[in-house]
Amino acid sequence: MATTDIDFALDPRLAADTVVVTDLPLCRVCLMNDARFAWLILVPRRRDVTEIDQLTDADQAMLWSETTRAMGVLRTIASPDKLNIGALGNIVRQLHMHAVARHEGDAAWPGPVWGSGMATSYAEPALAELCSQLTAALSPQP
Amino acid sequence: MATTDIDFALDPRLAADTVVVTDLPLCRVCLMNDARFAWLILVPRRRDVTEIDQLTDADQAMLWSETTRAMGVLRTIASPDKLNIGALGNIVRQLHMHAVARHEGDAAWPGPVWGSGMATSYAEPALAELCSQLTAALSPQP
Repeated sequence: MATTDIDFALDPRLAADTVVVTDLPLCRVCLMNDARFAWLILVPRRRDVTEIDQLTDADQAMLWSETTRAMGVLRTIASPDKLNIGALGNIVRQLHMHAVARHEGDAAWPGPVWGSGMATSYAEPALAELCSQLTAALSPQP
Repeated sequence: MATTDIDFALDPRLAADTVVVTDLPLCRVCLMNDARFAWLILVPRRRDVTEIDQLTDADQAMLWSETTRAMGVLRTIASPDKLNIGALGNIVRQLHMHAVARHEGDAAWPGPVWGSGMATSYAEPALAELCSQLTAALSPQP
């Protein structure tokens, strides 16, 4: 189990654009508040890290593992035609990994989701329901 | 050392858009023939794989390791302001990982490189020189 930084704080822009779903051992998992895509953002709870290779090898392995776990959850919940992952950080420098369920013909298809049009916020009941589904799916299985 | 698939073949579109630099234990490393960005594409030499989590755990670990190695090489060669990685595959389904050196003010900044304008092919001497640099930098150190 990774020991994450106690004084980690989510970048304000990520906090504004997302809803926190849960914490995995390394990453805070956030749902992008954009109903056009099932889109998770995994943020390692480490201070002052902007590039993946600034993480320790153990943290890198954990980030990878948690990213593939998020992909599996997105596959179950959203039945995508394709999964996309990416770590860009050109605007928000706090290291974060995107995992996005893509469907043929979605609002950005076949281009990337980043920078594609305006987000469409979830309606409140749908948001709460999806977060609940995601939390359950990301929880350790008994 | 991974044993890669003998009958692996690079997707024709990737082959058309890139120049092969070298083979790492798992991935064929290609340079995107776009002088606007120092942009590597790592293609696991496995048949019929479109998603990262279709790889075995060992191959996933190798893909991650080779991706961070490519990031380190891009940092050395291109002195980027930011590194971007991504595995999308919405158009070319053969699993491939992008690693791109980004500079503030580059042709796509701060957006993603994917789908951003037209590629500008390298001039031939510059292409050969860069491939040579990349091959040397990616080779195992004695």
